[in-house]
Amino acid sequence: MKRPTIADIAQAAGVSKGAVSYALNGKAGVSDQTRARILDIAARLGWHPSSAARALSEGRSGAIGLVVDRPAWVLGIEPFFMQLISGIEAQLSGSGTALLLEVTEDTEAEMATYRRWWGERRVDGVLLVDLRHDDPRPALVRELELPTVVVGHAGEDTGMSSVWIDDGVAVHEVLDYLVALGHRRIARVAGPPPLVHTRERSDAFARAAERLGLAEVPTVHADYSGEDGARATRRLLSTAVPPTAIVYDNDVMAVAALGVAHEMGVDVPGRLSIVAWDDGALCELVHPGLTAVSRRVPEHGSRAATILLSMVAGGPVEQARLDPPVLVPRGSTAPARR
Amino acid sequence: MKRPTIADIAQAAGVSKGAVSYALNGKAGVSDQTRARILDIAARLGWHPSSAARALSEGRSGAIGLVVDRPAWVLGIEPFFMQLISGIEAQLSGSGTALLLEVTEDTEAEMATYRRWWGERRVDGVLLVDLRHDDPRPALVRELELPTVVVGHAGEDTGMSSVWIDDGVAVHEVLDYLVALGHRRIARVAGPPPLVHTRERSDAFARAAERLGLAEVPTVHADYSGEDGARATRRLLSTAVPPTAIVYDNDVMAVAALGVAHEMGVDVPGRLSIVAWDDGALCELVHPGLTAVSRRVPEHGSRAATILLSMVAGGPVEQARLDPPVLVPRGSTAPARR
Repeated sequence: MKRPTIADIAQAAGVSKGAVSYALNGKAGVSDQTRARILDIAARLGWHPSSAARALSEGRSGAIGLVVDRPAWVLGIEPFFMQLISGIEAQLSGSGTALLLEVTEDTEAEMATYRRWWGERRVDGVLLVDLRHDDPRPALVRELELPTVVVGHAGEDTGMSSVWIDDGVAVHEVLDYLVALGHRRIARVAGPPPLVHTRERSDAFARAAERLGLAEVPTVHADYSGEDGARATRRLLSTAVPPTAIVYDNDVMAVAALGVAHEMGVDVPGRLSIVAWDDGALCELVHPGLTAVSRRVPEHGSRAATILLSMVAGGPVEQARLDPPVLVPRGSTAPARR
Repeated sequence: MKRPTIADIAQAAGVSKGAVSYALNGKAGVSDQTRARILDIAARLGWHPSSAARALSEGRSGAIGLVVDRPAWVLGIEPFFMQLISGIEAQLSGSGTALLLEVTEDTEAEMATYRRWWGERRVDGVLLVDLRHDDPRPALVRELELPTVVVGHAGEDTGMSSVWIDDGVAVHEVLDYLVALGHRRIARVAGPPPLVHTRERSDAFARAAERLGLAEVPTVHADYSGEDGARATRRLLSTAVPPTAIVYDNDVMAVAALGVAHEMGVDVPGRLSIVAWDDGALCELVHPGLTAVSRRVPEHGSRAATILLSMVAGGPVEQARLDPPVLVPRGSTAPARR
C-alpha cells in the first residue's frame, strides 16, 4: 500500500488517468456510474488529494510557522518556548494545521526563512517572537504580505496582529509587595537589553521605584540561562551592601539563584527574597517554592494561533491584550530582616 | 511585493506566461536573451519555485514529521521532548528541512496523522517516539512505506531504523554505586508500564538486584509529572521501613521528590539518596544537585534526524546504538546511614 497515484487508480479501475482526474475533481467527462466506481476504488486504495496539489489550487499549505532565532539548545532548557509551543499545539490539535518549526542562527537567516517559506508556500502565516528594538522583521512580513501574529507588544499603531500582556502592572505589584514586606534594597536580574519586553519592564521598574521612593533598582543583564543567572546573583550578593530581594526576568535564573544563595550561605527567604518572572513547573518543584509572576505563557501560544488561523481565513488584524500577569506568592519571599 | 506569480513575471517582462514557464524550467521555446531577461526579472521580483509545485514534480516535501501522543501541556513541562526537539533542530538547521510537529490525543489519531501527512505529501518521513508494547505504529509505517526512524529500542529484527541506548548498563551502574554507598533498601519511581523503555529498565533492575543479592526493588509507577512523582515519593517514604535511596525514571519527578523530602523532614542525602534519569538543566540547578543518569537526549534527536534525512535520500535502514548513559554524581547521593 504505497502512496497511491492517479495512475494506480486508473489501472485498478481500468480507465484512463484523465477519467480518474475528472472523477476526483468532480468535473464532467465521466458517467455517474464510472465516477462512483472510481471514487470507491480511490477510497479503497487510501488515496488522499496531495497537499501539494491542493496548495497549488487553493493556495494554502495547512501549516503555520515559528522561527526561533536562538541557539537550538535553548529550546531544551528555556521553559518559555516549550510552554509557548504547548499552547500553540493545544490550539492546533485537531485542526489539521501543523506547526513548522525552524531554529536559525541570526536575524538574517530568520528573515531568509520567512521569504523562502512564503515564496515556496510552505506556510500560511507565521508567529513572530522575541521582538527587538529596531526589529527589521515587521517590515519584512508587511512587505511580503505574510499573515503574521507577534507574540509580544508590537505597538497599537503598527497595524500588526499581536498577543501581549502589560508587564508594567505586575512590576508595580511586585515592588509594592516587596516594599510592604519591608524591603528597600531591591535588585533585578534582567533579560537581554535589545528585547522589547526587557526595556518595557525596565521602564516600569524605574517608575515604580520612583513612586515608592526607592533608590534606583540595581539591574544586571543576563541571557536567561541558569549559568548567567547564577553569575549575576553572585555579583549582586558580593556587593558591600547586598540587596535583600532580587527579581529575576525568568524562572531558570531564579532557580539558579536559589543554588547560589545556598552556596554562599544566604538563607532564602530569611536574608534574601527571590521573585521569578514566568511561573513554570520549576517554581513549584524547588524548595522553597518560588514566588512568581504568572504570565500564562501557553495562553499566549493558543491565542496567537487562533488569531493567525483566523487571519489566514481572511479575518482582520487583531491585537489581544491578555489579562495582566498575577503574583503567585510562595516560600521564597518573606519580611526583610531588620 | 506580494508572492509573485508567473503572470506577474510575464507582465513585467512583456511576454506570455508560457514563455516565462519555458524560461524558468530551462526548456526550449525562448531565446537565450529572453530567458536571461525573464530570469533576471523573476529574481528581482523575489520569485521562488513554489514548494508545492516542486513537491509535485520531485515528490519531496522538505519536512520531517514528529507526532507526540501526549497531552499538549506535557511539551511545556517535560524536558525530554524539548531536548529531543532541540537536537533535531540542531541537525536540521541550515538544511532547508523543517520539522512538522503535531500533538494528538491518542494512538488512533496519531496513526491518522501519519496516513494524512504521507498521503498528502506533507512530510518525507517521520520520527516515532514513545514506543509501546504491541505498538501498532511500526506495522502502519511499514505498510505505508513511510521512511521512519524510531527513537527508542525498536528491536534489531524489525528491520526499522532506530536510535537507541542500552539503559541496562546504566541500571547496573546505578545499583552498584548505591550498594557501594551502603544502600540495601532501594526503591524506584518508574514511568508508565506500557512504554518499552520502562519495561526494559524494570527487567534490568530485577537482574541487577538479583546479582547484588538485594531484596526486590519496590517500584511505584507514575506518569512522569512532578505531581505524580511527589505522590509516589510520599507513599514510599510513608512505609514502615522506608527506602534509603530512590531512583526516578525522569528528572521532573526527582526534583519533586526533593520537595517532598523537605516537606517530610527527610534530609537529602543524609537520610535519603536520590538518583534521576535524564540529566537536564534542572538537575544542576536545584539544591542539592541531583545525581543523574545522563542519556544525552539532544544527541538522540540529532542522530535520528540524520538517519531519516539519509533514508529520504535513498539511504539504508540504520540502527544506531548510542554510547551507554553515564552516571553523573552530585550532592543528592551519599553513604547510607548505619
